[in-house]
Amino acid sequence: MRAIHFDQYLQYQPDVPEPTPPPGEALIRTRLAGICNTDLEIVRGYMGFSGILGHEFVGEVVQAETAPELVGQRVVGEINAYCGQCAACRRGDPTHCPYRTTLGIDRRNGAMSDVFTLPTRLLYPAPDSIPDEWAVFTEPLAAACEITERVHVRPSDRVVVLGDGKLGLLIAQVLQLTGCELLVVGRHPDKLAILARRGIRTQLDGAEIRAGADVVVEATGSPDGFRLARALVRPRGSLVLKSTYHGDLTVNLSLVVVDEVALVGSRCGPFPAALRLLEQRLVDVESLIHATLPLSDGLAAFEQAAAPGVLKVMLSANT
Amino acid sequence: MRAIHFDQYLQYQPDVPEPTPPPGEALIRTRLAGICNTDLEIVRGYMGFSGILGHEFVGEVVQAETAPELVGQRVVGEINAYCGQCAACRRGDPTHCPYRTTLGIDRRNGAMSDVFTLPTRLLYPAPDSIPDEWAVFTEPLAAACEITERVHVRPSDRVVVLGDGKLGLLIAQVLQLTGCELLVVGRHPDKLAILARRGIRTQLDGAEIRAGADVVVEATGSPDGFRLARALVRPRGSLVLKSTYHGDLTVNLSLVVVDEVALVGSRCGPFPAALRLLEQRLVDVESLIHATLPLSDGLAAFEQAAAPGVLKVMLSANT
Repeated sequence: MRAIHFDQYLQYQPDVPEPTPPPGEALIRTRLAGICNTDLEIVRGYMGFSGILGHEFVGEVVQAETAPELVGQRVVGEINAYCGQCAACRRGDPTHCPYRTTLGIDRRNGAMSDVFTLPTRLLYPAPDSIPDEWAVFTEPLAAACEITERVHVRPSDRVVVLGDGKLGLLIAQVLQLTGCELLVVGRHPDKLAILARRGIRTQLDGAEIRAGADVVVEATGSPDGFRLARALVRPRGSLVLKSTYHGDLTVNLSLVVVDEVALVGSRCGPFPAALRLLEQRLVDVESLIHATLPLSDGLAAFEQAAAPGVLKVMLSANT
Repeated sequence: MRAIHFDQYLQYQPDVPEPTPPPGEALIRTRLAGICNTDLEIVRGYMGFSGILGHEFVGEVVQAETAPELVGQRVVGEINAYCGQCAACRRGDPTHCPYRTTLGIDRRNGAMSDVFTLPTRLLYPAPDSIPDEWAVFTEPLAAACEITERVHVRPSDRVVVLGDGKLGLLIAQVLQLTGCELLVVGRHPDKLAILARRGIRTQLDGAEIRAGADVVVEATGSPDGFRLARALVRPRGSLVLKSTYHGDLTVNLSLVVVDEVALVGSRCGPFPAALRLLEQRLVDVESLIHATLPLSDGLAAFEQAAAPGVLKVMLSANT
């Protein structure tokens, strides 16, 4: 089969052996796979991963011995393959299982290939009303929902989102639905325009921002973004970190102790909620699609995805 | 001026003296006023109010000495005229001010007249993009938003709303935006159909409902509704009371003590959030309008509003 493989450098491999699903896992035929910023970081060598890339996907189940009802279904899937038996799993935090492998990110081949395997318990059928191009966004949209899962964002809150990348645009749309007073600060007029068309207030980075926000979401991934977020959040407010920082970040803990700001990390989120928002057309992902390329053009797709200002680039395994 | 007046019985009065605004208050010319269930209860004699009715309104400011910038503006307004100086007001809970009067409900003439007065600090300009017929819903929509203001409803929560009245339909739409797994139980197929068209799952009262919900909102106002809500909420879940109950309700407190269910009352809510949801077209109020009658047909309008299955009836003071 064909695959996009990383091991020190990125390669398109036309003839990789097909995997055999281990017990409890399904064999899935990839339809579309999205390129995420995490993939770009892996390619830059940040994550220490080697293997087939891809953790945002929609595919079709071709084999599933322990869940035959899934065969033939179009599915999306969570990415953390947890053990189900450790303390974290038993207290209901499987995404924090210390024994987990992660699809296309950590010790588990991903979806950028003709077929791949994933535990059946991680799969969710995609409703017919959600086209493939939208279904690929389930994983990042679930990550955006994880913010309102962890932090109580009130209709009367003033909320600032820093960053207008793919994830920032999804986060902003999810937060808008709370009724909160929302401002999104970014560096790309064309990306901010996607939000402005939906009635969300936006502003280019550099203009003055009123401090004292109840909730600030840092989605730029830069130390500058963190410093700005810190300056904007009110005492007893919440600062949500939605980015992976490379290396250490020097944080003066008086933020947490004196100002009692809650520092909240946020990672993978609830898939069923993301599917509901897509199905009920409450979030626009269509505007976030930049291009769809065949799997065999994977290297060109990664180059496009890494160019400044580019939104979601997808790989199609159908062609 | 013309007014809809209640004092033991409801009357249309064609020639009431116009009020003079006290210091800090604006004189407002009514454009539309909505009839709410609370109005119907007043007319049934439940609230002990006498005076001009009406607390859901959109109007135009004709006089405002202390806030001249409001003159000529189209406004909606909060209904609790608070003192601003007592302990409740100073801790930021003005809707709980013990000295408050309430528009058309408690010791303050309401908006079902050609003009009326209200403190300028309670007024919010209505954005041009919100037509009068929608702006009237700001007050009940704010009340719906008060649920997510008080209770952290998570995207992964399973939520049940009991009741498909005007408020129930607004509550359901606000809760849908959280991404939660939502079920609305009602008795009126045509009202439930409004929600079903928006992708919300609905069910007629009487069919079986899965217990163990994270959040249950009781919006029927009946003791049966409360008992059902109690049976449906999971231990450590939240039971939101969004109805006024007449007389006492016998509650076994083991619900709260043994099952640790949070009993949360919820009344008036955040106007700016409601205006944002209307402006960004995230909630459909258009489908909730039953009829608009001239102020002079107020008695007929109240009769219509009290008929079973009828949604919002409005009074127009323009004609």
